[in-house]
Amino acid sequence: MNTGNLTPTDLERQAMRAVTDHARQLAEEGHDIIFTAAIVKDGRIIAQARNEAADTNDVSRHAEVVAIARATDALATRDLSGATLITSCQPCEMCLATMRWARIDRVIFAAQQENTKPEFFRFPGLKITDYHAACDGCFDWHGGLDEDRVAHIYAQEDDA
Amino acid sequence: MNTGNLTPTDLERQAMRAVTDHARQLAEEGHDIIFTAAIVKDGRIIAQARNEAADTNDVSRHAEVVAIARATDALATRDLSGATLITSCQPCEMCLATMRWARIDRVIFAAQQENTKPEFFRFPGLKITDYHAACDGCFDWHGGLDEDRVAHIYAQEDDA
Repeated sequence: MNTGNLTPTDLERQAMRAVTDHARQLAEEGHDIIFTAAIVKDGRIIAQARNEAADTNDVSRHAEVVAIARATDALATRDLSGATLITSCQPCEMCLATMRWARIDRVIFAAQQENTKPEFFRFPGLKITDYHAACDGCFDWHGGLDEDRVAHIYAQEDDA
Repeated sequence: MNTGNLTPTDLERQAMRAVTDHARQLAEEGHDIIFTAAIVKDGRIIAQARNEAADTNDVSRHAEVVAIARATDALATRDLSGATLITSCQPCEMCLATMRWARIDRVIFAAQQENTKPEFFRFPGLKITDYHAACDGCFDWHGGLDEDRVAHIYAQEDDA
């Protein structure tokens, strides 16, 4: 399995711990849709979020999109160049494109597409390597960090 | 050029006329970011929108995403099965995935990717035919309807 082309920093590892803690907590509380994310920038975690699609009746409110919106709100700019997106589960196509609209070029996720349910993706035939190639490597990525902490939440039925 | 696999209905043509009128009006008013969209469902236009990313400081607020949010709001459901997304310019990757999260399986756009600026897409190496194939043809599409009415707005510099 291709786990990407970057090595997480200590801060990014700390942010992933917070993101996976958040997902595990939501799972323990019995939530239906459990995806969490954070934005790291300028040496700190500037935003954290969970999926809010059901709460807002807005399909676009995935954890990553909410975290990005909180970060652009906090910094009063739509340009998050230099930030890292940290997510509990590999971002779907919508979230990956949203990340790039915010000029984020670094993404780290725990659960990898190959180990999760097909319904978490809308164009399942396309992999992150396809998106990476389709923009001439415009972002760096790493998959599988702390995956063991959340794998049970996103696992395919066969693996559960 | 592959213009897709569906034939627009009279109502969809009417909605496209409204969407392209909207874009032309914004262009005449001198707006910077000019993208417009509508949702057709149950025999009528249930939502119209323009890009609101700058207004809201939220990169995800493309016209298509705003139109989908207005439609799910109006109908009090995130399931827009049976709806059609009508847009002035070919939806980017984010909008195409958002459309599918709302279970919309029919999209009609005016300006086609090949005739517009590369910066309107974040993964320019992927075409709508790639997304179509990557979900086993999960949506029907038609590109180029009323393209002549808005081509000048989205044209590549070379063509302008």
